[in-house]
Amino acid sequence: MAKPKKHVFVCTQSRPPGHPRGSCGGNGSMAVFQEFLQQFEKRGLWGRYAVTGSGCIGPCGNGPSVLVYPEGVMYGAVSKEDVAAIIDEHLLGDKPVERLKVPAEVWG
Amino acid sequence: MAKPKKHVFVCTQSRPPGHPRGSCGGNGSMAVFQEFLQQFEKRGLWGRYAVTGSGCIGPCGNGPSVLVYPEGVMYGAVSKEDVAAIIDEHLLGDKPVERLKVPAEVWG
Repeated sequence: MAKPKKHVFVCTQSRPPGHPRGSCGGNGSMAVFQEFLQQFEKRGLWGRYAVTGSGCIGPCGNGPSVLVYPEGVMYGAVSKEDVAAIIDEHLLGDKPVERLKVPAEVWG
Repeated sequence: MAKPKKHVFVCTQSRPPGHPRGSCGGNGSMAVFQEFLQQFEKRGLWGRYAVTGSGCIGPCGNGPSVLVYPEGVMYGAVSKEDVAAIIDEHLLGDKPVERLKVPAEVWG
């Protein structure tokens, strides 16, 4: 694949139920990842943009976590319904979605 | 975790033996990932730098693939022995390791 303009990483780490750190997988990150894949397919974004599942990128307690490079913007508690906004506003519009960003003390 | 100065993604995707696309996992990427983890631990790099295992980042045939953001530099056919150079030259020295970069027609 060509070097993408934006590269989205969706944490798909899972931990056993009841694990004290929780996990993005346990909080529904696979549905978020699948939604990215479907929208990439439907909108023809592959090539210019990329999305990849990843291991732990912290912060686990606020998952599902989604990280977008090259800006290094971390989104927390992302739901399937938020995916279109990340694509429209950040990937295509080049403006990070402020309401979904994790607090600066967590990732700043 | 705090936002890192450099974020290393090591593809740990595996495919069944004989799969036509091959895979980084099949080419020994777990040893590369482990080496990053050990050197991060030994050198106290966590916090300022991050390393994360990831799904497929392409190009599978030239794995193990290692991708460093925010620059978006893609390294191919990385061995355990190359990890120290990536840390010393690129992460700490801010100069990508030219000899390990994939060709521009693959990722450029």
